[in-house]
Amino acid sequence: MKTVQDYIRTIPNFPHEGIMFRDVTTLFSDPRGFRIAIDQLLHPYAGQPIDKVVGLEARGFILGGAIAHQLSLGFVPIRKKGKLPGKTIEQDYTLEYGTATMEVHDDALQPGEKVLLVDDLLATGGTAEAGIKLIERMGAEVIGCAFVIDLPDIGGRKKLEGLGMNVHALCQFEGD
Amino acid sequence: MKTVQDYIRTIPNFPHEGIMFRDVTTLFSDPRGFRIAIDQLLHPYAGQPIDKVVGLEARGFILGGAIAHQLSLGFVPIRKKGKLPGKTIEQDYTLEYGTATMEVHDDALQPGEKVLLVDDLLATGGTAEAGIKLIERMGAEVIGCAFVIDLPDIGGRKKLEGLGMNVHALCQFEGD
Repeated sequence: MKTVQDYIRTIPNFPHEGIMFRDVTTLFSDPRGFRIAIDQLLHPYAGQPIDKVVGLEARGFILGGAIAHQLSLGFVPIRKKGKLPGKTIEQDYTLEYGTATMEVHDDALQPGEKVLLVDDLLATGGTAEAGIKLIERMGAEVIGCAFVIDLPDIGGRKKLEGLGMNVHALCQFEGD
Repeated sequence: MKTVQDYIRTIPNFPHEGIMFRDVTTLFSDPRGFRIAIDQLLHPYAGQPIDKVVGLEARGFILGGAIAHQLSLGFVPIRKKGKLPGKTIEQDYTLEYGTATMEVHDDALQPGEKVLLVDDLLATGGTAEAGIKLIERMGAEVIGCAFVIDLPDIGGRKKLEGLGMNVHALCQFEGD
């Protein structure tokens, strides 16, 4: 029986030379692959109180929408700057070259709400860290960070665990 | 009891002067709102064979992920040009000023597969039409186009119905 990792396709040299891109679209497009990925993302949180699911643009929306619906919870998108129509709060994060900005509607979470943060891939942890900061600036609490893929050699898990986060990933690719 | 439409927030003058932006983030972030939206999007298709759910970037990912998971189907993203790592096919569409391009992985659908196309908003129908063309160019069949919001005065529904499409929307805003 194929595992989640078996459904993931690797595309060399995308988005630029030297990067082994881990492509989850082949996981998402397979009915069994998508089903077991969503189910396994949720397993550690069974029985835990969660108030909102937050997904990071854009592949985190696919996972987050499925998870929020599965749990009958609301879904909150964290987006790249300029996409959200209402009043937002912003958080910069570091890219390989320069910085970028994520934002969230400033009324999307209430103080004390327990949040599950979801994205497809944990690499440097930069966008996840920006997401965590935005959630915490609204007074909400991140009870878990769930990813399909962890690239442990790039250090994102260590970064998030250093922030006190509980990190859950379905598979790892080493040497990336 | 609030309807789907009641959860949608209107933000004037976004993304530019004169536009009444219909903001579904307030629908998605409400647990009951998101639940009833996904359920109602699916009601017309109960008992119909569907092989894949296709969502249009980016809000269509939130809906499409939830719907694919609900039905235990695979999810296929149609994205703005340059975001997908594998070999793609492209389709141009017309914007208010100029054109843009959507694309999909060229192996994401198989000939004969029955597809449900999902997005949050039907306005001009330009991106939906590009999505339909991409799906049909792969030999797959669009059995329905499901939207949360229809803006009937802008003509998208007529355009899609003129292509032989079955269009389903949960609510309408007139005068937009």
